[in-house]
Amino acid sequence: MGTEAGDHHRLRALSARHLHGVGGAAAEVNLSARRPFAEKVWSDLAETLFPDDPFRGFGALPPAKRALGTLKYFVPVLDWAPRYGLAKFKYDLLAGVTIASLAIPQGISYARLANLPPIIGLYSSFVPPLLYAVFGSSNNLAVGTVAAASLLLASTIETEVTAEENPELYLQLFYTAAFFTGLFQTALGVFRLGLIVDFLSRSTITGFMGGTAMIIILQQLKGLLGMRHFTTKTDIISVLHSVYHYRHEWKWQSAVLGICFLLFLLSSKHLRKKLPKLFWVSAIAPFMVVVIGGVFAFLVKGDEHGIPIVGNLKKGLNPLSISQLTFQSRHMKTAVKAGLLSGILALAEGIAVGRSLAMVKNEQIDGNKEMIAFGIMNIAGSFTSCYLTTGPFSKSAVNFHAGCKTPMSNVVMSVCIMLVLLFLAPLFKYTPLVALSSIIVVAMIGLIKVKEFCHLYKVDKFDFCICMVAFLGVVFFTMVTGLSASVGLSVVRALLYVARPTTCKLGSIAGSETFRDVKQYPQAKSVPGILVLQLGSPIYFVNAGYLRERILRWVDDEEDLGKGIGHDLQYVILDLGGVTSVDNSGVGMLLEVHKSLERRGITIALTNPRLEVTEKLVQSGYIRDVLGEEWVFLTVKDAITACRYALQMSRSKGEDEV
Amino acid sequence: MGTEAGDHHRLRALSARHLHGVGGAAAEVNLSARRPFAEKVWSDLAETLFPDDPFRGFGALPPAKRALGTLKYFVPVLDWAPRYGLAKFKYDLLAGVTIASLAIPQGISYARLANLPPIIGLYSSFVPPLLYAVFGSSNNLAVGTVAAASLLLASTIETEVTAEENPELYLQLFYTAAFFTGLFQTALGVFRLGLIVDFLSRSTITGFMGGTAMIIILQQLKGLLGMRHFTTKTDIISVLHSVYHYRHEWKWQSAVLGICFLLFLLSSKHLRKKLPKLFWVSAIAPFMVVVIGGVFAFLVKGDEHGIPIVGNLKKGLNPLSISQLTFQSRHMKTAVKAGLLSGILALAEGIAVGRSLAMVKNEQIDGNKEMIAFGIMNIAGSFTSCYLTTGPFSKSAVNFHAGCKTPMSNVVMSVCIMLVLLFLAPLFKYTPLVALSSIIVVAMIGLIKVKEFCHLYKVDKFDFCICMVAFLGVVFFTMVTGLSASVGLSVVRALLYVARPTTCKLGSIAGSETFRDVKQYPQAKSVPGILVLQLGSPIYFVNAGYLRERILRWVDDEEDLGKGIGHDLQYVILDLGGVTSVDNSGVGMLLEVHKSLERRGITIALTNPRLEVTEKLVQSGYIRDVLGEEWVFLTVKDAITACRYALQMSRSKGEDEV
Repeated sequence: MGTEAGDHHRLRALSARHLHGVGGAAAEVNLSARRPFAEKVWSDLAETLFPDDPFRGFGALPPAKRALGTLKYFVPVLDWAPRYGLAKFKYDLLAGVTIASLAIPQGISYARLANLPPIIGLYSSFVPPLLYAVFGSSNNLAVGTVAAASLLLASTIETEVTAEENPELYLQLFYTAAFFTGLFQTALGVFRLGLIVDFLSRSTITGFMGGTAMIIILQQLKGLLGMRHFTTKTDIISVLHSVYHYRHEWKWQSAVLGICFLLFLLSSKHLRKKLPKLFWVSAIAPFMVVVIGGVFAFLVKGDEHGIPIVGNLKKGLNPLSISQLTFQSRHMKTAVKAGLLSGILALAEGIAVGRSLAMVKNEQIDGNKEMIAFGIMNIAGSFTSCYLTTGPFSKSAVNFHAGCKTPMSNVVMSVCIMLVLLFLAPLFKYTPLVALSSIIVVAMIGLIKVKEFCHLYKVDKFDFCICMVAFLGVVFFTMVTGLSASVGLSVVRALLYVARPTTCKLGSIAGSETFRDVKQYPQAKSVPGILVLQLGSPIYFVNAGYLRERILRWVDDEEDLGKGIGHDLQYVILDLGGVTSVDNSGVGMLLEVHKSLERRGITIALTNPRLEVTEKLVQSGYIRDVLGEEWVFLTVKDAITACRYALQMSRSKGEDEV
Repeated sequence: MGTEAGDHHRLRALSARHLHGVGGAAAEVNLSARRPFAEKVWSDLAETLFPDDPFRGFGALPPAKRALGTLKYFVPVLDWAPRYGLAKFKYDLLAGVTIASLAIPQGISYARLANLPPIIGLYSSFVPPLLYAVFGSSNNLAVGTVAAASLLLASTIETEVTAEENPELYLQLFYTAAFFTGLFQTALGVFRLGLIVDFLSRSTITGFMGGTAMIIILQQLKGLLGMRHFTTKTDIISVLHSVYHYRHEWKWQSAVLGICFLLFLLSSKHLRKKLPKLFWVSAIAPFMVVVIGGVFAFLVKGDEHGIPIVGNLKKGLNPLSISQLTFQSRHMKTAVKAGLLSGILALAEGIAVGRSLAMVKNEQIDGNKEMIAFGIMNIAGSFTSCYLTTGPFSKSAVNFHAGCKTPMSNVVMSVCIMLVLLFLAPLFKYTPLVALSSIIVVAMIGLIKVKEFCHLYKVDKFDFCICMVAFLGVVFFTMVTGLSASVGLSVVRALLYVARPTTCKLGSIAGSETFRDVKQYPQAKSVPGILVLQLGSPIYFVNAGYLRERILRWVDDEEDLGKGIGHDLQYVILDLGGVTSVDNSGVGMLLEVHKSLERRGITIALTNPRLEVTEKLVQSGYIRDVLGEEWVFLTVKDAITACRYALQMSRSKGEDEV
């Protein structure tokens, strides 16, 4: 019986091969195609790390030009500076002055948000923009500190030491964190691991930013109410509890002034929406609030009448802080943690902002190159009394609308800040804290994107969940909790896509040439006795078990169906066109399915395996030793023709025997 | 100019639609197909959690039969017991006695490996097999303790308390860990989360098992050399250092006896390879070693002459241990950690063994059902002085070869162990420790699969890396390190597949009906002015950025190529047949690419979007409002025909204008 079955099998195979040879002409799957190992690894690496192929077209150049090109790639200023002229400078000057007027209040505000001396915020708007102008490749980005990362740094470092306990150590940890942020960002850029940022999906960022904006606004209750005591926690419950607990500290003077400022800022923002050409009004409004508030506080001696002010600001440029970096293992752990977390966050914001603005101008941004620029800027910043900087959305948008042409606008801003540091800093002493708080509140309101939440809910419920996890996690727990829970959920989703790939049964439509999912196209017809299955996605350890069970279930279903109409299932055709790769477990799965179907008397045929899959299947011996080369076809149509022919042969033989 | 371009665009679209309507006949992409939300969620959940569709065919049955079917599903003994008879029992009796003879030495050995009183090993071979016989669905699995999980439990629990410090608490933590293992396994089974086990790839398991076998063998140096002091660490360096450090404790008597036993066991194993029919010799060889060793140690008073023995074993069945479970938060954390880790490991081994043996007999194993059986068995075990049990490979293979027919062989083994516990336990007092060590060594040698390592190296270098990380991690660090590093690497690989999906340029072969990767089929021809790209895998946040850059690079390359031969690129056809799903970021990416290409004057067409993708693209407004329905085609051929037609139209119009 064994030999008879063997004969039968051989016959079918032969007939199939025969037909295949005649009908298929030159169109066969090339089973001997195999790339050398080095080439395979190299092309995989290149795809993974250099998807944008940054050195495109360099191959053809002479060595000197190639070196210059590479240098220009890493130091973009060499590329644009020679072509720079007065025509562009006019635009950049205007944009630079505009963002400088925004940088002063924002710098002071965000430094206060991080419980740092306000002057650090100004320092951080001086050195980093200069460096970005040299190494950065975005023409629209304006460099500065950001609210979310400031609060994240503060809340992480406060687990180790608070600003009240030991202000010096607290500040040192900020510098150290910035140093590690820089190292980390540079390393990511150099090793081209920009794809880490890809794991922060848009939904995660939307939810995280919204939640962060929410808790930052809550933090401003301290400034708006003129309170002196507050919690170091950030979640809504602790904050509201502390606001209520210290209610005897509330100062009506601060509150009234705060409401005035808020109304002024909000109406300037509204104006911008109505008349986009007047964007500069809303751009310099924060600066005006600071100036007006300062003059007012000076006139009425605000600090003695319930309007706390910023206090002394030292004249002079950034002092060196390289000696203040602390590498004692006890504190370093916190600094590293704070640096990495805020570094990823800062990268995500900076790169996203750069990309979306570049897209409007039809320019290209190289994420990995940007990372190196951010990294250099933060390392140098940590040596010169700056804390973490990146390309914040609000400032960059203003820069863009003000008509910036090159990173030169950052240089202009930097020069403005330098002048302020050298001559005007003491004047900002009288800035009321409530002015800073209202500036932050208004900046943050725009980040809670209710419309985007609604859009997500409509289009994709799972994305909405991911977004809400980030939002609620940040608001009710901590920023790190919200972010990591949301990223975790996204990764689980990504893995689920991989673990449960779609399979479908194909039927022919439009004259038996085209094969499509019978569920999607109910008019698609299948051939009795032959089941065509399409597998999508790579086959490997995560989904091998699932696919085995799923294929067998398709076969069971088809057999049940066939019994009704008296047709035994004899062939299963697996369309591998969508299978981009296969690993050891995947090959094992195909082998198991093959054996399992063979025992039921069902023959397997493969169609359209891709290059990588063919390599693996040949190398592991599956195609040659188990399946037989004659059962690999280029198209589903070829496979069906061969199976039909073999079916007829075996039926007519069966009738002969009868 | 804007309106002119608009006109032009409209014309092209119209002509395409016209042609599409004529040529495509009934074959169009159904853009209005949309599944209700509930149906979508339900089908996704069913695919994720019930890939094997366990209640298949129940729908048609009357309620009473359906209930009985469900009961039989969860308690398989109801299914097979009524059909059980003497014919099968003869086989099960033989198999049961054989595995009982293996269970005694293995039980004692593995309990010693975990630094537990040896009698716990015998207890653990009594209750759990009985329960498995009721709830288990594998006919081949033999239940018992396993070496790897024993060592893992010991090394985890020893971070909290060592067996010497507080033997009672140590034992209690083992019971508690078993309890949590059981809870965890049951929960996984009930919530059908068996896919967690899928993340332990074959390569990870091969490497981990090999590494574990290695360190277990190293642990046996203590027994083989008759030493009294030893390290509690498991890594090779600590162990070898401690063996050298306590070299004055080495006993030549133990070593000589050990070598004799090893030679005996190895030759019995060799015999089995040569003459498979004599498998029972190697199956009872460990038992013989225990008996011979015991008699020898009794005769020469081994314990006084450098041959340490097991020591007192209490007569009697398992005492209840339910009151010994400890839920103090301090200790519980360790117990939970140990329980979960060893639980996953035990599941992976048990299910893999069950599946691979079932496959030989062409039976089916439901992984989730097995998890529930393992879970119940471990919960009940933790109440009756047993520690973690599963279906170990060695015992199950012996069971299989001895001809077992049903889980009844586990009952037979259980009865044998019961008799031993009731009457013979004290006799095993004289078992020399060196006998147990040699039994373990021989059992472990087979788990270091050098051939499999070589095979992996040959077929897949990355799989080989994953395997080696597990192996070296276990040998040089800890078991948890090795396992988690290897799983981490596998997951990174899975995510990389997802983050860097393959894209390729298609060309037509075999008469312009079939489109294939031009890299794989160099004879494939492309149409000038039209670029056909195939995207594989789902498009979502992880790879959206990459795909955008990759598509634009393909376009750049094609434009460079076109310049050479004087053909401008005018159309990009994206074949979405391999795209199984798309999320919010993915839709955003398509939109960005669309805008970017539009600015360059290139039109996009989509072909063959699948059901889920069509839904999302329609819902988000991309197809209707941005792309236009007329640019969605069923096949690449249709799309090319339409593009060619539009190209000709625009060219002839251009000539007219000239």
